[in-house]
Amino acid sequence: MIIVCKPSAPEEKIDALTAELNKQGYETHVSKGKMSTIIGLIGDVLKVNKESLEAMDIVEMVQRVSEPYKLASNKFRNVPTVIDVCGNKIGGENFAVIAGPCSVESEEQVVDCAKAIKKAGGTFFRGGAFKPRSSPYVFRGLKEKGIELLLLAKKETGLPIVSEIMSVEHLDYFNDIDIIQVGARNMQNFELLSELGQHTKQPILLKRGLANTIEEWLMSAEYIMSGGNPNVILCERGIRTFETATRNTLDISAVPVLAAATHLPIVVDPSHATGKASLIRPLAKASIAAGCDGLMLEVHPAPEKALCDGAQSITPTHFAEIMKDVKTLCDIENKKL
Amino acid sequence: MIIVCKPSAPEEKIDALTAELNKQGYETHVSKGKMSTIIGLIGDVLKVNKESLEAMDIVEMVQRVSEPYKLASNKFRNVPTVIDVCGNKIGGENFAVIAGPCSVESEEQVVDCAKAIKKAGGTFFRGGAFKPRSSPYVFRGLKEKGIELLLLAKKETGLPIVSEIMSVEHLDYFNDIDIIQVGARNMQNFELLSELGQHTKQPILLKRGLANTIEEWLMSAEYIMSGGNPNVILCERGIRTFETATRNTLDISAVPVLAAATHLPIVVDPSHATGKASLIRPLAKASIAAGCDGLMLEVHPAPEKALCDGAQSITPTHFAEIMKDVKTLCDIENKKL
Amino acid sequence: MIIVCKPSAPEEKIDALTAELNKQGYETHVSKGKMSTIIGLIGDVLKVNKESLEAMDIVEMVQRVSEPYKLASNKFRNVPTVIDVCGNKIGGENFAVIAGPCSVESEEQVVDCAKAIKKAGGTFFRGGAFKPRSSPYVFRGLKEKGIELLLLAKKETGLPIVSEIMSVEHLDYFNDIDIIQVGARNMQNFELLSELGQHTKQPILLKRGLANTIEEWLMSAEYIMSGGNPNVILCERGIRTFETATRNTLDISAVPVLAAATHLPIVVDPSHATGKASLIRPLAKASIAAGCDGLMLEVHPAPEKALCDGAQSITPTHFAEIMKDVKTLCDIENKKL
Amino acid sequence: MIIVCKPSAPEEKIDALTAELNKQGYETHVSKGKMSTIIGLIGDVLKVNKESLEAMDIVEMVQRVSEPYKLASNKFRNVPTVIDVCGNKIGGENFAVIAGPCSVESEEQVVDCAKAIKKAGGTFFRGGAFKPRSSPYVFRGLKEKGIELLLLAKKETGLPIVSEIMSVEHLDYFNDIDIIQVGARNMQNFELLSELGQHTKQPILLKRGLANTIEEWLMSAEYIMSGGNPNVILCERGIRTFETATRNTLDISAVPVLAAATHLPIVVDPSHATGKASLIRPLAKASIAAGCDGLMLEVHPAPEKALCDGAQSITPTHFAEIMKDVKTLCDIENKKL
Repeated sequence: MIIVCKPSAPEEKIDALTAELNKQGYETHVSKGKMSTIIGLIGDVLKVNKESLEAMDIVEMVQRVSEPYKLASNKFRNVPTVIDVCGNKIGGENFAVIAGPCSVESEEQVVDCAKAIKKAGGTFFRGGAFKPRSSPYVFRGLKEKGIELLLLAKKETGLPIVSEIMSVEHLDYFNDIDIIQVGARNMQNFELLSELGQHTKQPILLKRGLANTIEEWLMSAEYIMSGGNPNVILCERGIRTFETATRNTLDISAVPVLAAATHLPIVVDPSHATGKASLIRPLAKASIAAGCDGLMLEVHPAPEKALCDGAQSITPTHFAEIMKDVKTLCDIENKKL
Repeated sequence: MIIVCKPSAPEEKIDALTAELNKQGYETHVSKGKMSTIIGLIGDVLKVNKESLEAMDIVEMVQRVSEPYKLASNKFRNVPTVIDVCGNKIGGENFAVIAGPCSVESEEQVVDCAKAIKKAGGTFFRGGAFKPRSSPYVFRGLKEKGIELLLLAKKETGLPIVSEIMSVEHLDYFNDIDIIQVGARNMQNFELLSELGQHTKQPILLKRGLANTIEEWLMSAEYIMSGGNPNVILCERGIRTFETATRNTLDISAVPVLAAATHLPIVVDPSHATGKASLIRPLAKASIAAGCDGLMLEVHPAPEKALCDGAQSITPTHFAEIMKDVKTLCDIENKKL
Repeated sequence: MIIVCKPSAPEEKIDALTAELNKQGYETHVSKGKMSTIIGLIGDVLKVNKESLEAMDIVEMVQRVSEPYKLASNKFRNVPTVIDVCGNKIGGENFAVIAGPCSVESEEQVVDCAKAIKKAGGTFFRGGAFKPRSSPYVFRGLKEKGIELLLLAKKETGLPIVSEIMSVEHLDYFNDIDIIQVGARNMQNFELLSELGQHTKQPILLKRGLANTIEEWLMSAEYIMSGGNPNVILCERGIRTFETATRNTLDISAVPVLAAATHLPIVVDPSHATGKASLIRPLAKASIAAGCDGLMLEVHPAPEKALCDGAQSITPTHFAEIMKDVKTLCDIENKKL
Repeated sequence: MIIVCKPSAPEEKIDALTAELNKQGYETHVSKGKMSTIIGLIGDVLKVNKESLEAMDIVEMVQRVSEPYKLASNKFRNVPTVIDVCGNKIGGENFAVIAGPCSVESEEQVVDCAKAIKKAGGTFFRGGAFKPRSSPYVFRGLKEKGIELLLLAKKETGLPIVSEIMSVEHLDYFNDIDIIQVGARNMQNFELLSELGQHTKQPILLKRGLANTIEEWLMSAEYIMSGGNPNVILCERGIRTFETATRNTLDISAVPVLAAATHLPIVVDPSHATGKASLIRPLAKASIAAGCDGLMLEVHPAPEKALCDGAQSITPTHFAEIMKDVKTLCDIENKKL
């Protein structure tokens, strides 16, 4: 970390600052230049409060020269994290296709859908039992009953299950869920992240918040990892911009940016990113070509009857078509599906 | 709600749709025009799943003609909500100044700060005991000890207390807190909102999420209100944009937009919106001139020593200066402080 | 176009409005419903001033049911526009790779670079002679001398030339340039667009503005086309968002959104979108997989010595590597390079 | 300017870089620290190409410690720029109210409107003769005829005229216009800026681009100033964000941020920022309280008949009401109207 002092900063104040930093346990290296004095800071700088330093009247700016995260960084672990659930893998050379309906609605819907996904080559089954909805007046999911139906679908197909948790209080319901999803709106629900780090062993699929930077997203992964759970999967699902042609703007650049910064697997969800079924195929292909480790796709047997998010769901038939392209592109990218 | 069908929509499919809507309990009014058929929908349209309708292949677009919220709308309550805590009021003709440090750090800090705020004319004391921090490695607040110190400050000054809750599990600690704050990152933590609506009686100060529209914000207020707690205060604290000169972009237009849409009180927090102490005075004044019902200001006895967010804190002396302007502008706006 | 009147609108005012619209030459179809009266408008609605209608006190909302553009829409022309310059084509089944340095600097730089691009399989050579720079103090291009050097590169390699125009006054210099580029900052320089439509015959490569929607972009294409020049190529180059890991955010969804809306060719520029050389390869691949018709890539013999935008340039060697992937993906997408 | 080298940078490469920088005329100060080597750069750093430095493989980051502009900075001129047109002033202690219709439509409209504005206390008259419109199919202004009508309004009322230029080619028509406006979409039309700097003597009102940072905006002012015209007025008119309740988001913080950075006058246009007549009053008041030097307001005798932007225009009666508040707030802010 580098602290650039203002040209006007009096020497005694700079000395007082370095003394304070030394007292807190940091090594300091002072370069008195013609323009300004620069203090290099060495030690456990992850704990430094950058904002407090910036608030000091002698300080011009403070700049980190290393990431504010460690466990998520590939500087500290240079092999890809591979997550293996019942033999189905994500990460490294392994590609995953996580598919299923936005909401669990009925036994028939879930089981039929899971079978169709399995048949077409999907590797994980997803479904929402607890649903975050912006209105209190609409369907919020079947809750524990929904979890039961998902486990039934697993029994029938063998596909591991991914489902979203909305509150620490529901953790007990997720004991048999294979991958626990944290939704975009909870990406900075730090209490939930801490708890999942400390009290779960299942992998966590962490969706990016609608207005969160890639760095903030990795910091949220760090919350989970620093609690003791190293198995985090990152899921890009679009950010909020001014463009209204799509519900959100899929940040495809996040895929290679993350690939250069972290060893964690990266999944892309084109369904939520765009909100339009017709865009899923080209964006699924683009995501693989950009280097992602998996896809998350909304599939519903009858999208027009879906209780939520019908517009962005594709049919099992359409899914099977897309899977052909997925396989072609995985071959080129040397990914095993 | 209006459903515009595509010009190509076959009549039997339109009939099937209206039949289904009637079955669900909605009244339908069909206008067959030369260009397209339009279905007017009457009934409890708050429960309609707009996305599912839009997903149908015969539908061109669906448009609400009324807001998706009701309890928060001033169409259903045309007098301002006034929240009275120990005689200190917010809303209607009553202006509130909520001030205090970002984080509670020590008894001395809190009590001295509260006294200075009281003396300068502040009407509520705020302080963070549970702190949302984007890094797991930095100070996250004194937690229950912090709550105790806040209550001590109340005892010493009589100022009602505002403090942020981060998880339903902490609710018991907030029994004696006068106004419970929901932070920007939890604005769409729907489980927390539901719980606060159903199991608390204290007013809730609901901060706007960094990437949330005004409508989504009012929907989150509706969550709390529909649970049974009508006392919601809205707090604008800046949205995320491309501009980097300020930490966030204060959406001043939200003040008059909300004033036209809701009876709930509107507070502005220029400290978090900008992240810079030097901008607080002009933006506090602008907010009053725009018609807000209160301000939330970060005040710290020694900002450069603050454990968090020092850069955006002002000193008690600076606060007292700002209060003079606040009083002048409240007089012009006919607000009682 | 549909005009929804307010429930409170008095009948005589609605009648006056329809009379006025009829007088202006539009056919009107009025449906008086229980909730509100809806006026369907038929005729040359491209000329309707939507904002003026919305400003009327009896109007609740106005909604277009067709696009505000016509010549750019594939509803009016259902075969792809193919642009053929000296036998090198863009559009339909033809893929183009436009490559070259940000700025023309010297004869050696341009000619060497063009040769390397030609050898690796690039189909167009690009270079900036007139450079838009946000600071008045930095290099703004070699201007007419730069155009001469580009034409020299064409003579040496046969590659058609793409270069950016910044002002109508420079049009004469561009007589021999094969494709004239309009930069992102001039996407809504309507005088320039009109002039290029009326007084040039060369194809126009129209870059998307940093804060412009896809619809506004197509409207700018419409400006050129309605002037008489039907040969417009659209170039996505990233939009401005809050994310800072990349210079802009490449809106990959724009590719399939445009493919469904227009017959014009779509090119992607990952160099300007991200500002980082290391991201060009994965994003070039992603763009092809998403369905684009061409790529625009910054290539410089010595990026670290580039007078502008060195950070986003790749070397000729790196370009040749990327071209291998481009060919593989074009094969899959059935595009001829 | 500070260049931080990567920890891995070999000494000879760092030496080569400093030698090159010295050759280009910069003084360098090298601090070899334990973590990384830092090069301080002194000289005419406005001309340094930051991106090229960042592209070098030995460079970790480059940071300016001073603004990239000079003439617009109040570090180089510490008295406010006051612009005096026929005795009507903007800047310093002088407040200006620039009002008038979006488009000039007829003699009667302009003259009546100008008289009403004069009577209510407005100090400048504005009107659009050349109109930037996103569609080629709608009214684009009366052009030179519009300029004539504006000058007629000046003759009748004595109010100085503000009107927008869209192209260098129209400059001759603007000889008698008192303040030339550069619209948001032309804020980075660098050729236009250069020309206005070099070939006009009138003050330039420079609107902020929809997606431009405050720094970029000041750089565009610098373009004009460095050409030889020091009289630039900055006009905030809203930036593009995800919020749809207002057409744009008025960045009120820009007012105090600019006040701390520049000596140029700052005007706010709440009409274009919000697109809604009902929001103009509160936002006009807020802007004065935030410290602006003037307002730009759209006033139209019959907004519902306006050929463009009716929704955001207020009537002369409404304008007169707002002027009462403007006067009250100017008194408090010690501004002379």
